[in-house]
Amino acid sequence: MRIALGIEYDGSAYCGWQSQPDARNLQDTLQAALSVIADQPISVIAAGRTDTGVHALEQVVHFDTDTDRPLTAWVRGVNALLPPDIAVLWAHIVPAEFHARFSAHSRSYQYILLNRPTRPGAHHGKIGWFHAPLDTDVMRAAARYLIGTHDFSAFRSSECQAKTPVRHLQRLDIEQRGDILFFDLTADAFLHHMVRNIVGCLVYVGKGKHSPEWIKEVLENRDRKCAAPTFAPDGLYLRRVGYDGKWGLPQFPSP
Amino acid sequence: MRIALGIEYDGSAYCGWQSQPDARNLQDTLQAALSVIADQPISVIAAGRTDTGVHALEQVVHFDTDTDRPLTAWVRGVNALLPPDIAVLWAHIVPAEFHARFSAHSRSYQYILLNRPTRPGAHHGKIGWFHAPLDTDVMRAAARYLIGTHDFSAFRSSECQAKTPVRHLQRLDIEQRGDILFFDLTADAFLHHMVRNIVGCLVYVGKGKHSPEWIKEVLENRDRKCAAPTFAPDGLYLRRVGYDGKWGLPQFPSP
Repeated sequence: MRIALGIEYDGSAYCGWQSQPDARNLQDTLQAALSVIADQPISVIAAGRTDTGVHALEQVVHFDTDTDRPLTAWVRGVNALLPPDIAVLWAHIVPAEFHARFSAHSRSYQYILLNRPTRPGAHHGKIGWFHAPLDTDVMRAAARYLIGTHDFSAFRSSECQAKTPVRHLQRLDIEQRGDILFFDLTADAFLHHMVRNIVGCLVYVGKGKHSPEWIKEVLENRDRKCAAPTFAPDGLYLRRVGYDGKWGLPQFPSP
Repeated sequence: MRIALGIEYDGSAYCGWQSQPDARNLQDTLQAALSVIADQPISVIAAGRTDTGVHALEQVVHFDTDTDRPLTAWVRGVNALLPPDIAVLWAHIVPAEFHARFSAHSRSYQYILLNRPTRPGAHHGKIGWFHAPLDTDVMRAAARYLIGTHDFSAFRSSECQAKTPVRHLQRLDIEQRGDILFFDLTADAFLHHMVRNIVGCLVYVGKGKHSPEWIKEVLENRDRKCAAPTFAPDGLYLRRVGYDGKWGLPQFPSP
């Protein structure tokens, strides 16, 4: 039986999603709790392997088990075994063709940026920070150059293992509420560090270091060295993974 | 010279505001950083002594020093010495008659409550939680009974040291966004545990255990034992302290 789970987590205390021997990670932590409920070793596959310090509001994973449990056991039972910074939101039985990563047609991330002279305090670890004033109008103008299907090599980390640097960015909205900026991005998939590199470049434009058109040049040059430094993971949230309605996943409404 | 500071903090890792010998607290932590910058022992007085696990988005404190430093030293210099979960937002020279606690004419708190079947994960420690559905309309009807000047003995902790249980509650708004409820309260001052006890009673009404009118009975009975249990500190934020404009404090706009 294949089961899909929606999960959320505060990634502050983890070395990212991926299983690794000597570092506290989200995958091993979740697998340990699931394995207790299943009474057999469980391996999970996630829609997106979030980096160190990156958070998720609705990550999706799947796993296979021959243990028959009521769905509440995979939610409340697992939550009772997980640390307080990870929670299972829902569980759903899916056909064997469902794959958390390959069946996903989109990923939505949000980057939350505190824009004020003083560093974060109350929200440390949960929000990015930039000290100088940012002009959101020019940032929005720059963002428009990134919408669509492009080779995003300039926004890709050198450790990125994706087969192709071409991605379709459907949405890049910037909303300001008080001294907080919300960047909402949706794409078919993202390259390694792509969101944090995009935010870094938009901040360069917003503070007046470059014109909005500079983003177009960076994109066309396809050279990571032309772009701005990668922004901190603190403000990055995997908000939603998009799947075809046919799977019937009980996901939250689109953000 | 008397200096006022606006500060914010994540209270998760602290045994509340107040100085005490063997427990990590916010007051001692702030005083230690200020004393380094001042090169003399500094004692601060806060507008509100928040409890264990309670957060602040704009607490106000004052202290006296004969050390002359540029205001940026009291902000950026102190921030460099503070742990990442506390930040100074602003510093302002005030007359000797200013008193962070006694000059304040109002305090605004926000309680953030996650209302869904599963416990928090991504926001653990920063948000309260109630698992069963809540009817916000009846909660708002109940809230109206609390507005105004009342004896709030029924909502006061047994450890409360206030001289009088009479408080003037100016505002108690409940706003719902998705599965999160925001309770916004403003009063001249609050009794110990008053916000968390009010939220507990409103949740009793919202889940259908009592009618909105029950809140009126609880208030009139003035008996803590009639009320609901105190809600968790996790979702509680001191958002703003109100002062007369004559002090010229560079506070954030009213929430």
